[in-house]
Amino acid sequence: MLDSFEVMTSERRYPIVLGNGIIREVADKYPYAIYLVDRNLLTHIMLPGGRCIEVDATEENKSLERMTDVVIQLRKLGANRDSHLVAVGGGIIQDIATFCASIYMRGVAWTYVPSTMLSMADSCVGGKSSINIASYKNLVGNIYPPSAVYVDVALVATLPTEHVIGGLFEAVKICYAHSITAMQVYSKYDASPSMDLTGFQKVIYHALICKKWFIEIDEFDQKERLLLNFGHTFGHALEAGTNYKIPHGVAIGIGMLVAVFFSRQRKDFTDLGVARVNELSGYVKLTIQNSRQHIPCLSDSVDLLLVMEKFENDKKHSSSHYRMVVPNIEGNLELVSFEKNEENRVAILGAFRAALIDLSCFSFN
Amino acid sequence: MLDSFEVMTSERRYPIVLGNGIIREVADKYPYAIYLVDRNLLTHIMLPGGRCIEVDATEENKSLERMTDVVIQLRKLGANRDSHLVAVGGGIIQDIATFCASIYMRGVAWTYVPSTMLSMADSCVGGKSSINIASYKNLVGNIYPPSAVYVDVALVATLPTEHVIGGLFEAVKICYAHSITAMQVYSKYDASPSMDLTGFQKVIYHALICKKWFIEIDEFDQKERLLLNFGHTFGHALEAGTNYKIPHGVAIGIGMLVAVFFSRQRKDFTDLGVARVNELSGYVKLTIQNSRQHIPCLSDSVDLLLVMEKFENDKKHSSSHYRMVVPNIEGNLELVSFEKNEENRVAILGAFRAALIDLSCFSFN
Repeated sequence: MLDSFEVMTSERRYPIVLGNGIIREVADKYPYAIYLVDRNLLTHIMLPGGRCIEVDATEENKSLERMTDVVIQLRKLGANRDSHLVAVGGGIIQDIATFCASIYMRGVAWTYVPSTMLSMADSCVGGKSSINIASYKNLVGNIYPPSAVYVDVALVATLPTEHVIGGLFEAVKICYAHSITAMQVYSKYDASPSMDLTGFQKVIYHALICKKWFIEIDEFDQKERLLLNFGHTFGHALEAGTNYKIPHGVAIGIGMLVAVFFSRQRKDFTDLGVARVNELSGYVKLTIQNSRQHIPCLSDSVDLLLVMEKFENDKKHSSSHYRMVVPNIEGNLELVSFEKNEENRVAILGAFRAALIDLSCFSFN
Repeated sequence: MLDSFEVMTSERRYPIVLGNGIIREVADKYPYAIYLVDRNLLTHIMLPGGRCIEVDATEENKSLERMTDVVIQLRKLGANRDSHLVAVGGGIIQDIATFCASIYMRGVAWTYVPSTMLSMADSCVGGKSSINIASYKNLVGNIYPPSAVYVDVALVATLPTEHVIGGLFEAVKICYAHSITAMQVYSKYDASPSMDLTGFQKVIYHALICKKWFIEIDEFDQKERLLLNFGHTFGHALEAGTNYKIPHGVAIGIGMLVAVFFSRQRKDFTDLGVARVNELSGYVKLTIQNSRQHIPCLSDSVDLLLVMEKFENDKKHSSSHYRMVVPNIEGNLELVSFEKNEENRVAILGAFRAALIDLSCFSFN
């Protein structure tokens, strides 16, 4: 069964269609398109022969320096202003497609088929790209939504469990950030990496509908959409401080736990606030603990001082203040600033430590 | 005295301000901005010390490959999302600034001070960039208007006469494309390279007001704005076929003459149509002939078969048809398609030849 809805942006409105095996319909609909595909997927999917650009989904390949290769391949495959690009892959392929489609002859139409749980449950709606340049990660980018997104939940079955968990954590983050009701609906679905595909379709649909609200109310990342950075400032520090051994989505899940600890050690929460953050923290903890054997990094050692150093370097902070998204006493998310002083540094480090203790995984200094 | 008006786009509205010596006000208004400046201008203008990126305005430097250098310089100068970029230069600097400002951290604000007659009288309104990649000229680009444009007519005095003439030809093209009335106003100003700065300010203001109409009615180049390619398909062929010895604007002027000859040899014009195209052709011819000594290329030899070959390769044609903007029998511009056959090829070559004979300059085969 197909689910679908539309996203409105200032430039265009585009449909999001979800279904099991829907990639075949895309291939039938666009036999003459130029395909930009994660090379690893080619064993899993059937695409029209002919014009295909295969890309390894690596950080190196989503650099401004490498965009030249993709653009030249588009030119050599005869792409013109009326050409249609179909991108099949995860976030890196989406970044490359968003960027190249937007600049090629000042913009060609493109369709996106996300293939990872993170891209299916979160990034496929929004239209943002993040591109590396020299040693600077995600320094450039743009916003250029596709003409349509087709989410094929059958692809979930091809993914490693730790990546599925990561996608669920981005999904629950969106629902939590959206509203109490959206979080209740998420909880009702009992989302876990062992769900069947119908379950995944429901959860992904719900997360994307919530994401749609953020995109439509704040297309250019000025206010509400910033709340979706919940878990990210702490999570990125954990990723970077462990040399990216913790998968992105899992780090975001743990980052939300850290944010909750940070907030609760500073303020007394209301009963409602406690119930809300406990529901979220409980879900993240249970999901990680139930899948310990599928997340190899959990037995690694974490250097919290290095994590703290990465936290300090986050480009979202100002020169004088830390900036991050944390729950307030009622559990609602807020973007807040804290002076960069010793007291706050100790509190942040303490929150990282408390979350890792609570998870009872990792060893750390 | 200052003139000013606003341009509305889907993303923002931005003011265009014209005045003699206005660059000093920009420098006072943005003492802490990052300046991106044509290196050749640094002897003519005073900018705030501090953060400045100097660029040679060459085709090589407006390539995707070189954007990396500019972005890295922005990063090293400490640019963040709230930074302001001020670009001072001609079309190449505008291309680089438009592109880099739009992708740096997904977009920073920028202000543009055009320094060439072409950029003052035409390209500064519109927000388009054209970027080279490998051997492909203008293959990529985007649309990202500045927050404001300041046209300092004092800079006209620094320009070679042939470039001033080129700018006037783009200006008269816009006015002609706009309406009979706009062309009448242009003619009334008696625009020539020997005008005083007050005259230039009036002519540039008038051309930009007409350009504004095209931008606002057709921001994304779908219909009306395509008429501004008048003179360009023929003109580009002349430029490319003479290895760019004919300056762009002068080539566009001659390209309009060719378009008029092409159209008149195919159809009987109405009296009004004849009067309108004669007014335009007469102006272009007189301006070139009065400034012969300032346009060295006019005594060159032109290989019309090479020009024709470049015409054939224009990317605006389809695989089966030539596409170009020409006047109809009443003198109104139209985007038309002609089958690629021998008859049309002969007619196009004949129009090139007739225009060059009429101008009584160049020698040609």
